[in-house]
Amino acid sequence: MSKQAVLLDDAAQESLCSACPAWTIADDGLEREWRFPSFVEAFGFMTQVALLAERANHHPEWSNVYNRVTIRLTTHDLGGLSSRDADLAQAIDSLPATF
Amino acid sequence: MSKQAVLLDDAAQESLCSACPAWTIADDGLEREWRFPSFVEAFGFMTQVALLAERANHHPEWSNVYNRVTIRLTTHDLGGLSSRDADLAQAIDSLPATF
Amino acid sequence: MSKQAVLLDDAAQESLCSACPAWTIADDGLEREWRFPSFVEAFGFMTQVALLAERANHHPEWSNVYNRVTIRLTTHDLGGLSSRDADLAQAIDSLPATF
Amino acid sequence: MSKQAVLLDDAAQESLCSACPAWTIADDGLEREWRFPSFVEAFGFMTQVALLAERANHHPEWSNVYNRVTIRLTTHDLGGLSSRDADLAQAIDSLPATF
Repeated sequence: MSKQAVLLDDAAQESLCSACPAWTIADDGLEREWRFPSFVEAFGFMTQVALLAERANHHPEWSNVYNRVTIRLTTHDLGGLSSRDADLAQAIDSLPATF
Repeated sequence: MSKQAVLLDDAAQESLCSACPAWTIADDGLEREWRFPSFVEAFGFMTQVALLAERANHHPEWSNVYNRVTIRLTTHDLGGLSSRDADLAQAIDSLPATF
Repeated sequence: MSKQAVLLDDAAQESLCSACPAWTIADDGLEREWRFPSFVEAFGFMTQVALLAERANHHPEWSNVYNRVTIRLTTHDLGGLSSRDADLAQAIDSLPATF
Repeated sequence: MSKQAVLLDDAAQESLCSACPAWTIADDGLEREWRFPSFVEAFGFMTQVALLAERANHHPEWSNVYNRVTIRLTTHDLGGLSSRDADLAQAIDSLPATF
């Protein structure tokens, strides 16, 4: 959090797409969907994301229906996709591979 | 769970609106939105709802952005609003009054 | 939950030890400890166990310190180790292998 | 987190006892127990504490049995009760009054 958040320019966005290929850039945000065996695993994953988000003080727009979780990351303060979104996406991608 | 789920007829829907006045019936579902002091309280509430839902084996369509939580209940198996939605809405409304 | 809980006799306990080799029988209970990469994974695991426990209406005695989680299962109503403990242990063991 | 953690001297400990009267100082730690209506509320509370702890990067020793939660705070790095424990205890006490 001590790092200053900056909007990602085109080069940084391309680099992000390479680092996090499972995410899609759309409407100035980063989006990804997951499917889990059941609600138990889906909400266990959400709890881990909640902890990462609170640690980073940067929170997702997200939704869940049974075993599906959709996350959208954007930085409202800066009006677009920022380094904070990239950092959180990478932290989420580092959670156990089962997810 | 042992109780058979049934679609709510007009009279049952009116009775539900009286019992759970904070919820709105829309598109064959029950909807309600909450605002909390912060993400911590919002996700603590979501965890309680997750436990109620798993206990009932009936799961919401829901989303969260920071301190806001939106829940929609409907019964896909029956194609509409059922007694299971009414039961879960009432269980959610019975959570601590702070929420 | 519809199944009647029964205390495990010696043969059933031996069978349980084979089915769930990571658990130890001690003081009329089943015990197991986990270590995770960090608190985030530990608490994500605990949330999944909480959902399984609430679904089964059978709750663990458990503790956590950072990345370590210790769970003890016993059935107070019956004064010992029962089929409900065996069922919950097996459900916990079925969570994603990363844990 | 930017604040340097310091061990609490006798005066700081007395001040803490006044600020957080529900906690007990024991064995170089701060301890408190809660009872909730059921497991649902107990684990909802634990999830909020987990988020506060991860935000502070300071984690409790804690245990749960059904509706009871016991938390112990101490600072292993410093070998005793520190300002980080006092800060986390006050954050926990600030959670919704229902708890």
